[in-house]
Amino acid sequence: ILPAVCFVWQIAMIILFGVFIRYDEESDAHWVEFKREHNITSDIENDFYFRYPSFQDVHVMIFVGFGFLMTFLKRYSFGGVGFNFLIAAFGLQWALLMQGWFHSLDPATGKIYIGVESLINADFCCAGSLIAYGALLGKVSPVQLMVVTLFGVTLFAVEEYIILTLLHCRDAGGSMVIHAFGGYYGLAISWVLYRPNLHQSKRLNGSVYHSDVFAMIGTLFLWMFWPSFNSAITDHGDGQHRAAINTYLALASSVLTTVAISSMSQKTGKLDMVHIQNATLAGGVAMGTAAEFMITPYGSLIVGFCTGIISTFGYLYITPFLEKYLKLQDTCGVHNLHALPGMLGGFIGAIVAAAATESVYSAEGLINVFDFEGSFANRGVGTQGGFQAAGTCVAIAFGLVGGAIVGLILRIPIWGDPADDNCYDDEVYWEVPEDEESIPPVLEYNNHMIHKHQDM
Amino acid sequence: ILPAVCFVWQIAMIILFGVFIRYDEESDAHWVEFKREHNITSDIENDFYFRYPSFQDVHVMIFVGFGFLMTFLKRYSFGGVGFNFLIAAFGLQWALLMQGWFHSLDPATGKIYIGVESLINADFCCAGSLIAYGALLGKVSPVQLMVVTLFGVTLFAVEEYIILTLLHCRDAGGSMVIHAFGGYYGLAISWVLYRPNLHQSKRLNGSVYHSDVFAMIGTLFLWMFWPSFNSAITDHGDGQHRAAINTYLALASSVLTTVAISSMSQKTGKLDMVHIQNATLAGGVAMGTAAEFMITPYGSLIVGFCTGIISTFGYLYITPFLEKYLKLQDTCGVHNLHALPGMLGGFIGAIVAAAATESVYSAEGLINVFDFEGSFANRGVGTQGGFQAAGTCVAIAFGLVGGAIVGLILRIPIWGDPADDNCYDDEVYWEVPEDEESIPPVLEYNNHMIHKHQDM
Amino acid sequence: ILPAVCFVWQIAMIILFGVFIRYDEESDAHWVEFKREHNITSDIENDFYFRYPSFQDVHVMIFVGFGFLMTFLKRYSFGGVGFNFLIAAFGLQWALLMQGWFHSLDPATGKIYIGVESLINADFCCAGSLIAYGALLGKVSPVQLMVVTLFGVTLFAVEEYIILTLLHCRDAGGSMVIHAFGGYYGLAISWVLYRPNLHQSKRLNGSVYHSDVFAMIGTLFLWMFWPSFNSAITDHGDGQHRAAINTYLALASSVLTTVAISSMSQKTGKLDMVHIQNATLAGGVAMGTAAEFMITPYGSLIVGFCTGIISTFGYLYITPFLEKYLKLQDTCGVHNLHALPGMLGGFIGAIVAAAATESVYSAEGLINVFDFEGSFANRGVGTQGGFQAAGTCVAIAFGLVGGAIVGLILRIPIWGDPADDNCYDDEVYWEVPEDEESIPPVLEYNNHMIHKHQDM
Repeated sequence: ILPAVCFVWQIAMIILFGVFIRYDEESDAHWVEFKREHNITSDIENDFYFRYPSFQDVHVMIFVGFGFLMTFLKRYSFGGVGFNFLIAAFGLQWALLMQGWFHSLDPATGKIYIGVESLINADFCCAGSLIAYGALLGKVSPVQLMVVTLFGVTLFAVEEYIILTLLHCRDAGGSMVIHAFGGYYGLAISWVLYRPNLHQSKRLNGSVYHSDVFAMIGTLFLWMFWPSFNSAITDHGDGQHRAAINTYLALASSVLTTVAISSMSQKTGKLDMVHIQNATLAGGVAMGTAAEFMITPYGSLIVGFCTGIISTFGYLYITPFLEKYLKLQDTCGVHNLHALPGMLGGFIGAIVAAAATESVYSAEGLINVFDFEGSFANRGVGTQGGFQAAGTCVAIAFGLVGGAIVGLILRIPIWGDPADDNCYDDEVYWEVPEDEESIPPVLEYNNHMIHKHQDM
Repeated sequence: ILPAVCFVWQIAMIILFGVFIRYDEESDAHWVEFKREHNITSDIENDFYFRYPSFQDVHVMIFVGFGFLMTFLKRYSFGGVGFNFLIAAFGLQWALLMQGWFHSLDPATGKIYIGVESLINADFCCAGSLIAYGALLGKVSPVQLMVVTLFGVTLFAVEEYIILTLLHCRDAGGSMVIHAFGGYYGLAISWVLYRPNLHQSKRLNGSVYHSDVFAMIGTLFLWMFWPSFNSAITDHGDGQHRAAINTYLALASSVLTTVAISSMSQKTGKLDMVHIQNATLAGGVAMGTAAEFMITPYGSLIVGFCTGIISTFGYLYITPFLEKYLKLQDTCGVHNLHALPGMLGGFIGAIVAAAATESVYSAEGLINVFDFEGSFANRGVGTQGGFQAAGTCVAIAFGLVGGAIVGLILRIPIWGDPADDNCYDDEVYWEVPEDEESIPPVLEYNNHMIHKHQDM
Repeated sequence: ILPAVCFVWQIAMIILFGVFIRYDEESDAHWVEFKREHNITSDIENDFYFRYPSFQDVHVMIFVGFGFLMTFLKRYSFGGVGFNFLIAAFGLQWALLMQGWFHSLDPATGKIYIGVESLINADFCCAGSLIAYGALLGKVSPVQLMVVTLFGVTLFAVEEYIILTLLHCRDAGGSMVIHAFGGYYGLAISWVLYRPNLHQSKRLNGSVYHSDVFAMIGTLFLWMFWPSFNSAITDHGDGQHRAAINTYLALASSVLTTVAISSMSQKTGKLDMVHIQNATLAGGVAMGTAAEFMITPYGSLIVGFCTGIISTFGYLYITPFLEKYLKLQDTCGVHNLHALPGMLGGFIGAIVAAAATESVYSAEGLINVFDFEGSFANRGVGTQGGFQAAGTCVAIAFGLVGGAIVGLILRIPIWGDPADDNCYDDEVYWEVPEDEESIPPVLEYNNHMIHKHQDM
């Protein structure tokens, strides 16, 4: 079934791209003429030079960051990095179409025009589904993941349209539209797909030494490039600059509180790799909305401080609680890294927006940051704060309802999901090499001993 | 012999650089004066700011991308990443000289002037030899690899001069000059160095679980940064923008068809890591020539779709066929990832060029994209298509003939290549640590058992 | 104690940031007004676009480069990458304050204004302490490392102020202020903390196969991005351009001489991973000061050539000598990679500065490169050379004296450092997963054998 889904969907993409997708003017060969007509003298004003380095950082986060973060299981590293690769590669094509339909369809020509900023947005759109994958890791088939991504990208485009366009919220780094949505989407799916006998795979639900080191590759690339993530599609100039600084500070602060709580939680004071791999990133998630606002440098540190604590507590107490009492199995703890910090980030953004003043932003700065133009020219910051909070609720609602529906679809027994005693096991979907490093000496010795015994 | 080669060649580099290589005007301290004389008001017009981010992406592909892609063997990870490092570091110095002699020697001063674009070109030039290394992985000595690189870089500079300058082909991402040349160069060398008794090393010609995960680091960095590779030296502005978008789309499409064919090829429907690690990249190779043309977004998807299929089929059927009937041992399958998709990419470029029209490109755009200026002002697109196809043939011919000659040189028995039963083994060239993780418990137990036996 | 230190220090950071740190004008929402007042027409002149790509490269070096380089030990990979993460995240906050106080405190407002360049400088400042960690790896507790970083960053800010501002030295890539200081700082601490019975942990002071491959990730990201490191805060334009080229060349040259010496040093001609992982980087360290000068391309190759040799010799002979006769245990050999090449780099910079002429630099270029303006307008290049040499001595003195004092503080027996037979062991500070890959077959077999014996 996997080959059929891949083929049919890829062919569908080709047809839809043929009908709808065209180069935007900056990437079209007519650019030479366009430049002359618009008196553009330097190619460096092309969005390529403004956006491309940020795009590549985001791209690394999507494929290496999310991919390697999910290699921590002892025998699901292939699935972690490999299926992440598959669904992101599918998702970004579908995202170009879905986001294009909602955001940049030219009604005159019926076409969607794409450039580097579209690629960044497509990567963002995929991120929602990859976050959802974190909750499902090891328990679903690749075909199920394709379905999760198909609906996830579609839901994302709709909620993003409602939140950013209709409600006119600001959400540069996607606390609401990416993390809260993606987190609750994954949790709702996982809740519907609850497996009462998952303990039969318990032997594989853990890490080995080197798989934890692989996961640190994911953690660090996410952590390092998160300032690019939160600033990638902000307005040029001060907003982008500020978003990077705020995110950098919040992340630095998260690391220290994560280490503190992780060490406190153990009688021996030892650190837990799960916390270091995940909760250190909570500050970046929580700054997704407010990063471009004038939250102040120490405000950023406070956000990172609190979310580092909350996220680590989540891993310690909330995930076990959810599993025991809510029947919700969340493999990577996306609740603690994405859903909860994303929701908090949405409300932090609302508060910071509501507290904005002309003295801090300057009159022009206020208009610029919150885009109070056109039909929103008269919106006040208090109203904006209210809409930001409403946007957060919309994102959560889309995640929960959409996830529940997709979960029901995934319960149809045609998708080839693994048995309860085969979860977290690459053997089900991958040709896994025999691990000849450890086996041979034992076997040799075995034969040797058998000989000895026969001699006796 | 390795120390001597390294020393002598590095000293030769120093002398040749002393005689020939100088900073170009943008990296010379006279830039302040140059700016004033040429009324340049902003430093951002310096090529450094246009090119440097792309350069770094390409640099990562050369060292981490190619290096880690070749760590997949269970006991040749040191050689994969380490020798790649060695020959790239040598090759890029030699490339600055060779490409400089052919492309940017100033006849007035007899000097070569280098800047960031020269560094990108040097990395590209090395890529040809690193691709060739993929076919030879595990079967040659580091000195042999230095020889492969010395001749590979030289041949590259010549064929590039013929193809880009004399034939006036366009080949921004090097489908022809890098991939087709490098692939066939490596295959020809490997064919001459055929080892009939290579099966004696069969136990080491395979992966272990974690070596496959390491290789995914290489795959993903190649995959993510390939848009930078294909756009790194295109014209500023729309061409660079378009090259990145087209490559991104072709790569995304390759992933899905690779997964489809890989899963179909097994009765159990399982995926093979070799395919995921390699064939997913075929779309980037095949877009090397056409990426900067107006191939359209759906055209890019189609290219990725087809080459993903072809490349995976290559791993399934062509590589075993070549080994069995053509006596050609191709460790990494460079035939399927570079040679064949590179050749296809060359012909795709020829077709897209021949099909170019003024309505699609605009009159100026057509001149701009194909550089129909100077003595080529009157060349038509049909003629250009013919020259592109001819260029592809030149690249393949250089690869095959050059590789055969270099292969003969490498058969001289002075290079210290490994014995047939020692291939794919780091022990031959590296101090390999004892793997104390698995050994100690066995040894302890062993002693324990011996005691027990003595007691009996 | 670790949780308390993390909490208290992070709260202190929040308070100090609240009092002192503000956005600079380019990252403040008043930028729109500022632009109009200063007739800035394009956002691309914002320092964000000039500096951000370099910042991200440096950021990767700090967290992935230094972090993974220290994963080479068989059972200290968590500590290598994890504690590096912790202390860098703390250090960069403290660095923003300390460097701000010394370099960019506005006396009128009493505030420090930060932008992207401040983030780069903070990363640089941390690098000094992370280098020191290399000498201490496996022998100190995380709290001790926090103390090392607290003092390291403070000392760094002071010596940097003396060297760059008072002595008016040029040190773009920090041969003096980062590498010589950081290296000698770590060595002095390690000398004071000498453990006569460290041999009790000898079984863990070595690598395993895959830990060496992990370390190559660190090596390569350091190596690839070093041109960005040395050029990140140079003047815009030719200086930045030249710094990248010179560093690139020096690094390429180091690789070949490292391989040569490593191979020569063994009777079997085999390569040692320790040399490849470290000494290949010596060229970048040694070019830290001179990279922005007109050292010429072949001059860069010569620097890399010599330091590659010296550094590898250091690993072969000096580190064992220091341990045996000076009672100095240097886990990663920072003496050979940072201290010695850093010192050499400082003196190379002095010589190149002293040899500068107007004919090579142009009159304006000379003023521009050495910043001979204001009260330094009349300083000659000879004097500048002298000051550069003096600056190197200041850096070393700060490292040695500061390190000795910090070492004494760390000998107070309250920091929870590991016992002599527990060094290089993650078990002390981390929850380490049982390695179920290798253990189960042995145990199963064990049980099986015991049965057999019982049967007999």
